[in-house]
Amino acid sequence: MKPILEVAESFGIAEKYLDMYGRYKGKLDLSLRQDLEKRPDGKLVLVTAMNPTPAGEGKTLTTIGLAQSLNAIGVPTIAALREPSLGPCFGMKGGATGSNKAQLMPSEDINLHFTGDLHAITSAHNLLAAMIDNHIFQGNALQIDANRILWKRAMDMNDRSLRQIVVGLGEGNGNVHESGFMITTASEVMAVLCLSENRQDLRERLGRMVVAFTMSDEAVTAEQIGAVDAMTVLLKEALKPNLVQTAEGTPAIVHGGPFANIAHGCSSVIGTKTALKLADIVVTEAGFGADLGAEKFFDIKCRQAGLKPDAAVLVVTVKALKYNGGVVKTELDRPNMEALQKGMLNAARHLENIRKFGVPVMVAINHFANDAEEEVSFIMEECRQLGVQAEISDVWANGGRGGEQMAKTLRDMLQREDSCFSPLYPDGLDIKAKIEIIVKEIYRGDGIKLTLKAETKIRDLEHQGFGHLPVCMAKTPYSFSDQGKLLGAPQDFTVQVRDVTLSAGAGFVVVHTGNVVTMPGLPEVPAAERIHLNEQGEVAGLL
Amino acid sequence: MKPILEVAESFGIAEKYLDMYGRYKGKLDLSLRQDLEKRPDGKLVLVTAMNPTPAGEGKTLTTIGLAQSLNAIGVPTIAALREPSLGPCFGMKGGATGSNKAQLMPSEDINLHFTGDLHAITSAHNLLAAMIDNHIFQGNALQIDANRILWKRAMDMNDRSLRQIVVGLGEGNGNVHESGFMITTASEVMAVLCLSENRQDLRERLGRMVVAFTMSDEAVTAEQIGAVDAMTVLLKEALKPNLVQTAEGTPAIVHGGPFANIAHGCSSVIGTKTALKLADIVVTEAGFGADLGAEKFFDIKCRQAGLKPDAAVLVVTVKALKYNGGVVKTELDRPNMEALQKGMLNAARHLENIRKFGVPVMVAINHFANDAEEEVSFIMEECRQLGVQAEISDVWANGGRGGEQMAKTLRDMLQREDSCFSPLYPDGLDIKAKIEIIVKEIYRGDGIKLTLKAETKIRDLEHQGFGHLPVCMAKTPYSFSDQGKLLGAPQDFTVQVRDVTLSAGAGFVVVHTGNVVTMPGLPEVPAAERIHLNEQGEVAGLL
Repeated sequence: MKPILEVAESFGIAEKYLDMYGRYKGKLDLSLRQDLEKRPDGKLVLVTAMNPTPAGEGKTLTTIGLAQSLNAIGVPTIAALREPSLGPCFGMKGGATGSNKAQLMPSEDINLHFTGDLHAITSAHNLLAAMIDNHIFQGNALQIDANRILWKRAMDMNDRSLRQIVVGLGEGNGNVHESGFMITTASEVMAVLCLSENRQDLRERLGRMVVAFTMSDEAVTAEQIGAVDAMTVLLKEALKPNLVQTAEGTPAIVHGGPFANIAHGCSSVIGTKTALKLADIVVTEAGFGADLGAEKFFDIKCRQAGLKPDAAVLVVTVKALKYNGGVVKTELDRPNMEALQKGMLNAARHLENIRKFGVPVMVAINHFANDAEEEVSFIMEECRQLGVQAEISDVWANGGRGGEQMAKTLRDMLQREDSCFSPLYPDGLDIKAKIEIIVKEIYRGDGIKLTLKAETKIRDLEHQGFGHLPVCMAKTPYSFSDQGKLLGAPQDFTVQVRDVTLSAGAGFVVVHTGNVVTMPGLPEVPAAERIHLNEQGEVAGLL
Repeated sequence: MKPILEVAESFGIAEKYLDMYGRYKGKLDLSLRQDLEKRPDGKLVLVTAMNPTPAGEGKTLTTIGLAQSLNAIGVPTIAALREPSLGPCFGMKGGATGSNKAQLMPSEDINLHFTGDLHAITSAHNLLAAMIDNHIFQGNALQIDANRILWKRAMDMNDRSLRQIVVGLGEGNGNVHESGFMITTASEVMAVLCLSENRQDLRERLGRMVVAFTMSDEAVTAEQIGAVDAMTVLLKEALKPNLVQTAEGTPAIVHGGPFANIAHGCSSVIGTKTALKLADIVVTEAGFGADLGAEKFFDIKCRQAGLKPDAAVLVVTVKALKYNGGVVKTELDRPNMEALQKGMLNAARHLENIRKFGVPVMVAINHFANDAEEEVSFIMEECRQLGVQAEISDVWANGGRGGEQMAKTLRDMLQREDSCFSPLYPDGLDIKAKIEIIVKEIYRGDGIKLTLKAETKIRDLEHQGFGHLPVCMAKTPYSFSDQGKLLGAPQDFTVQVRDVTLSAGAGFVVVHTGNVVTMPGLPEVPAAERIHLNEQGEVAGLL
């Protein structure tokens, strides 16, 4: 690893803008972006993927590797990524910093407490929760209905026992009411931090968050609770983008990590915009497959922040294509051309969808050692027929060198093709129409079916003046549809809208399809059981 | 402020031992203490106080100021202090870093997230809680009784609604049982971190913590849950002492902050021992008045860590003496010689007590602008008659210069008098006898009265082999007795022992007298409501 100051200076960041967190991590002062305001922006590239499968597609890995590859061919590039959450680290997934020769460094630090951003968000979230209950306890001037508190608690942990709880039991401990914990990445505070343009915007967004209803049915905001200034104080450092490096010394801005489900799943706007002032190309990613991640990246993050994405890279793997073609997990290592062909329909639909946003797109085939040559050639040929360039990405084994051809193809595409980006739908459309457009144009379903509750809440939200907000789809990531088992390119389905909820601070309306769990549980054998310090005092078992 | 590297180097700490957290905070690598092992230790001085009153005695202020004063007269001195907790910052108390010319810098950072130690402790605590519930959910191989889980959750927040909760409601969310949150400083993980000698000791202590009972009445430890290695990983940075500076550039090791109530209320052993290798004098403090703080410092921290305190300084104020002499809070500014004389009985008893531990002691009169001259002279004269030197400390107004006489007196006392420190009672005594000794010798009560529950649990603990542990008294800090309103030097009282609980990892048995609240609540107007960022983006309203 290079000292982070050296990494910063290699991209023209002066020492005064860098707050060190140890030798290898830093936070970039917010004044950096202001001071660079007059510089032109670099090009913005989104790395997205086909629908995720149990085999793992390597979207983060490819994002990191692609940034390395671009630097390797002489294009100054920065990666803009999301911060890992402790919950999944100790649960099922393990770390979230890429791996082998395409990984973020120092990976253990980044996977653990990093620079404390998630802890700050947890504190800000829970301060607001404590102040709401305290407001009621101390006389309830706002006449909050204790049974209609929307604001729950947050913890950066997988703990199913905290999903649904009753608080305030015992004498002198406040009002008894139902509550629950969500994982911190699912907190609206996280989404707000990721979408804020600056400190003032952060404060205003926090103030707009709706946290409860009064007994006379009025919405109560965080501003009214008097918590927002203190929350802003708690978040003042967390709002500053983190700078680290990849295994090859490429700068990476790793900042913000909202749930890709009930939130929009993209790294911070401040981080992305800062990176755009510093590099010729910024490579970023969005959670889950392109049906969720890319759609939200385009329709929420880019729309709100006025960002213009210049290109997209769709990550596919031989295994994920076969899985989407009907092969079970244990059989994925065996060549199966028929399944591969069927699975290509999934990738093809994602490619078509990305083009609907006016964004040029290419395919990265994330290469595994046991991929058969004919399988890879088949994917390349299929893409050619779709008019899309595909390249093999071998960044896991070979780092930046393993993705040079991919990087050159991307560079040429950026020079050749102009992005005509526009979001899928205009702000002015009503909420139901927005959902329908996404379902028909992106998921390719026949339409939507709403519960009475969803219908009523949509009407209320429009009545309250929130109809202009974009929608944030909460849907299974495994299928284009709302049924996780419909793989490939399903048709003839209707999407069931169970509920809608307002994230007034983040600036979107969450559309719940299926059962969204905002607090994961631990598996039978949690990853925590194998994580330990080795004899040298280093973290082992995390990746 | 000086760059922290400069502060470190002024006490001979090489750059390689310092991990920077921004420009003004650092963590000291654990290898520093090892590498200095052969150096002789400096002198260890405890700053303690008479019983606390609503007027505030300034114990932390005096500790910081005394360290500055000793440096001012040419004695290389380091302060070893506790870390503030977010809960009180946003609740009643505000910050905990001294003030004006005797304060820690950067005070806002230290009061807020600092270097993330409390967040790491919260995470480690809650990982264990999640893994216990998950163990039950996934088949319960250990046959844990869900109604006898001792291990609760932790949060660094004042939130009374979380004191007593029911978790696991709803389908698929685990077993329904009662639980609750304590503030992080009350977590046994915090006490363990503060008492650990090194990483190995930390791991072993965590493993010994008793977290539940099985259906056949066997104790279940954290080790058996399989959480201990991952907890150690989460705590690996938190175990390293933090280095900051005072307003005058004096180094301060600020590390660990256990509740002075159900825990022992002293800063970390690692921090203290590291400081002793670096300075001629280390000034440290312990929570609450000397009846709780000094007794636990001597009987728990010094006993466990093999530390030999060389002197103690008892902080008194004119106001606190008058308050203990019966004056109400609103009348404290008015001279009242009679009340002062009565209040002196409180200070005199604390002085006598400290001498019982064989530790030389002096008095620091923390000076307020409106103290009458005759009041101050009276205290000086009373102390003279008790054979104790007293000096005025004016460090709030004048920093180190305001405490030079106090520093000289302390230096001379350290040269003149040898400490003959020994704990109050031997390990071998049974638990009840230990409690009785403290009650009779320190509190000056007639004896103790135990509930049946306490009797039974003491017998069980001795049977299980925990009878050799020191006791950690949980008692109101406001009185020598267990009744907060008995001020001054009460006599003829019995201490009621309601319950005892085991902290097997920390290595003590907590003796509960009165009602201990391990999760504070927010007041009617929380400090959070006035904390904000000013126009320059600086934190305001915190101190």
